[in-house]
Amino acid sequence: MRTLQQVRDAVDEIAASSPSRLFLVVLFLVISVFTALLSLPAASVKHTVTPLHDALFTATSAVTVTGLTTVNSGEHWSLFGLIVIMVAMFIGGLGVITLASILAMAVSRRLGVRGKLLAQQSMNTNESGRLGEVGTLLRIIITTTTLIQMGLAVILIPAYWFEDRDLGDAVFHGLFYAVSAFNNGGFVSHANGLVGYEHNLLITMTVMVGVFIGSLGFPVLMVILTCRHHVKRWSLHAKLTVVVSIILCFAGAVVLGALEWDNPRTIGEFSFGDKILYSLFGSVMTRSGGFSVVDQNELNPTSMLITDALMFAGGGSVSTAGGIKVTTIAVLFLAIAAEAKGHSDVRAFGRRIPEGAMRVALSVVVLAATLVTIGCALLLWITKEPLDRVLFETISAFATCGLSVGLSAELPPSGKYILAALMYAGRLGTITLAASLAARQRDQRFHYPEERPIIG
Amino acid sequence: MRTLQQVRDAVDEIAASSPSRLFLVVLFLVISVFTALLSLPAASVKHTVTPLHDALFTATSAVTVTGLTTVNSGEHWSLFGLIVIMVAMFIGGLGVITLASILAMAVSRRLGVRGKLLAQQSMNTNESGRLGEVGTLLRIIITTTTLIQMGLAVILIPAYWFEDRDLGDAVFHGLFYAVSAFNNGGFVSHANGLVGYEHNLLITMTVMVGVFIGSLGFPVLMVILTCRHHVKRWSLHAKLTVVVSIILCFAGAVVLGALEWDNPRTIGEFSFGDKILYSLFGSVMTRSGGFSVVDQNELNPTSMLITDALMFAGGGSVSTAGGIKVTTIAVLFLAIAAEAKGHSDVRAFGRRIPEGAMRVALSVVVLAATLVTIGCALLLWITKEPLDRVLFETISAFATCGLSVGLSAELPPSGKYILAALMYAGRLGTITLAASLAARQRDQRFHYPEERPIIG
Ligand SMILES: [K+]
Ligand SMILES: [K+]
Repeated sequence: MRTLQQVRDAVDEIAASSPSRLFLVVLFLVISVFTALLSLPAASVKHTVTPLHDALFTATSAVTVTGLTTVNSGEHWSLFGLIVIMVAMFIGGLGVITLASILAMAVSRRLGVRGKLLAQQSMNTNESGRLGEVGTLLRIIITTTTLIQMGLAVILIPAYWFEDRDLGDAVFHGLFYAVSAFNNGGFVSHANGLVGYEHNLLITMTVMVGVFIGSLGFPVLMVILTCRHHVKRWSLHAKLTVVVSIILCFAGAVVLGALEWDNPRTIGEFSFGDKILYSLFGSVMTRSGGFSVVDQNELNPTSMLITDALMFAGGGSVSTAGGIKVTTIAVLFLAIAAEAKGHSDVRAFGRRIPEGAMRVALSVVVLAATLVTIGCALLLWITKEPLDRVLFETISAFATCGLSVGLSAELPPSGKYILAALMYAGRLGTITLAASLAARQRDQRFHYPEERPIIG
Repeated sequence: MRTLQQVRDAVDEIAASSPSRLFLVVLFLVISVFTALLSLPAASVKHTVTPLHDALFTATSAVTVTGLTTVNSGEHWSLFGLIVIMVAMFIGGLGVITLASILAMAVSRRLGVRGKLLAQQSMNTNESGRLGEVGTLLRIIITTTTLIQMGLAVILIPAYWFEDRDLGDAVFHGLFYAVSAFNNGGFVSHANGLVGYEHNLLITMTVMVGVFIGSLGFPVLMVILTCRHHVKRWSLHAKLTVVVSIILCFAGAVVLGALEWDNPRTIGEFSFGDKILYSLFGSVMTRSGGFSVVDQNELNPTSMLITDALMFAGGGSVSTAGGIKVTTIAVLFLAIAAEAKGHSDVRAFGRRIPEGAMRVALSVVVLAATLVTIGCALLLWITKEPLDRVLFETISAFATCGLSVGLSAELPPSGKYILAALMYAGRLGTITLAASLAARQRDQRFHYPEERPIIG
């Protein structure tokens, strides 16, 4: 009992002094547990021990809700293995949302009363103290996310039953895809994933909507659930997230659709309506669902580059989506717009965005670009594969997107460890960096004299 | 006479109201003139009319001091053609430096007295009014740059004489490489360029030093010429430029050298000393000289990616180097460092960098990344070539670097026009954008209420 108390005290102390570090350790431990579970003979169809690099890669991919795979999920893993992956995605998704929420709250606390009120508004906790405690927060997160995933399963289970006429299978696959979609997990429980079901719009469009909802992030979901269509009452964060998400989805769909319109190896032989629907599907999946109905290797190089950019952008903050996050992009573009108009304030929807937020956004982008460049350079060196494929898989891993050109499966163990490290860094890096930077911002009493270098 | 007066009035008016627009038009006209000259039969060895896309590409490449070529300069162009190219580089280099200087001065004027003094300090014009007029400025620029180029020629002419034992040839090539090096022009007057002369360190190292000096930029040269080793008296701009340039050169040399150390198709079979020297040479050339002694196609993919990053970075402001410029990078990294330390001010060398400078830097980077992405996507679409090669040539064009994997020569006319447009945009885009943004910055009286979105 005494030891337990000591452990709890130690955890409390770390949580108070450095929540980011605690979460980095916890995520590592959770991945280790799932690596062990996936290594069990019972987890594979052949009842053999899965090699460490594949078990670790899959566990990392599932817990970070990325969806990249080194083995064919539907063929390699047993039902037990697939359930382990599903649970890993559920726990990973929940963990990421909880962690990011706690950090956002911690930032608001350190920024003082005014900042606190504002961050609470973003989290939609205007009611005093409702989300004051981590326990309450966790309860609300679990309730909300579980309900949404159950809602998706309720649509997917009959859809799969209608397709395959096997209730047991349909329940399993329905649940699996519901969890995988909402958590932006990207894992599939069939050998061919969604390929072969692309004619069933009930399945693919439900998955698409699930991914989109999941990618908006918890604070935005709370705002929408509470304020609904009263957009004026939405927080700035919710408005920015929704607007940028919609712009990216539709712009991505138009560009990708136009580029692939006549490509017979992707959507070229689909019907007119399906071409449009699956362009939107493809665009939403870069936000970072990671499902696909076409082989990403067959995209033309221009589409791959556009997909790279969309994956790098990612989804909403405090969500299971990865990437640099849409608000980061919004803040940077608003700063540039302010610059172009000669405004000294960065404005959006009648609000001023503090300068500090812009510097945090900048740091996140530079960290992301640096990690992707280093990861890409290492994998180029290891594989000697063309940049197209290596960059695609690197960004997909970093942005925990899970779209794949199949490079993951071809890599030697060293390459798999690099991608796993990228998933880990991509999952927690931007969140913890942004939180720790934002928490440090404070005013300066002493100023150096100003001098302006020439830029550009 | 009356018409001339009207034209002059119109030019004066445009120059006063929008110097950037004037320069965009002037550059276009200058390119047109050199396109016409290079189209003349006398300009080619075969005495035939060079196709418009090749003449326009070469003229753009020479005037923007890029150095990309669609035809082998030493084989296609006659002596007259090569002299036209040399003059185009000389005028182009001079024009860019003059333009950028005038814009930097205009910015300082609009930012008010305090800003003016500081910008003058950057231009090293503490003596009252010494550079107050464009005429005086132009005189100083011409004198300084011509003297440096003559200095380089004085070393290169005997070196080529010693190599080839032909005084006339040596004078021509010496002058050509002096102009090409200092202006970061990247053009060569031999069919194989510097390949075949890599054993003559007097030639290659003189070219390297010329490129490095040229890439620092006019304000830094003036500061160094005036204050010499009294570094404390250097402007912040000069300190940042020199420090970042040196870091990039040596870091680039170490990384590129390590990656290519055993590559027999590049530096792998050089002697130990030459491996080190030519790693440094290769690194300096990304800063944007564009000369090479090895085939860039033979670099391993990792080195190509690192080279991409170094070319994108570019050289100093108000120089003939391209890219986003080293002070832009310095400001962004200093902003991130300030963030990490929790400072609200961005500091360097005991000075505070205004927030506005950071937003300008950010805008420049986003503009550059956007143009490169669009250009790269278009060229991928046209060529269906691998991303490695297309990205390399695209960044080289945008950053007016001139290192080439030979894609320029393989492109259909449409692709050549795209690269020419990128050179034009890369040459003037970042400079004019930065100037017009900086000039617009002003203080705001009315502030919206503050609200902070969640970042990352
Ligand atoms: K994913
Ligand atoms: K150049």
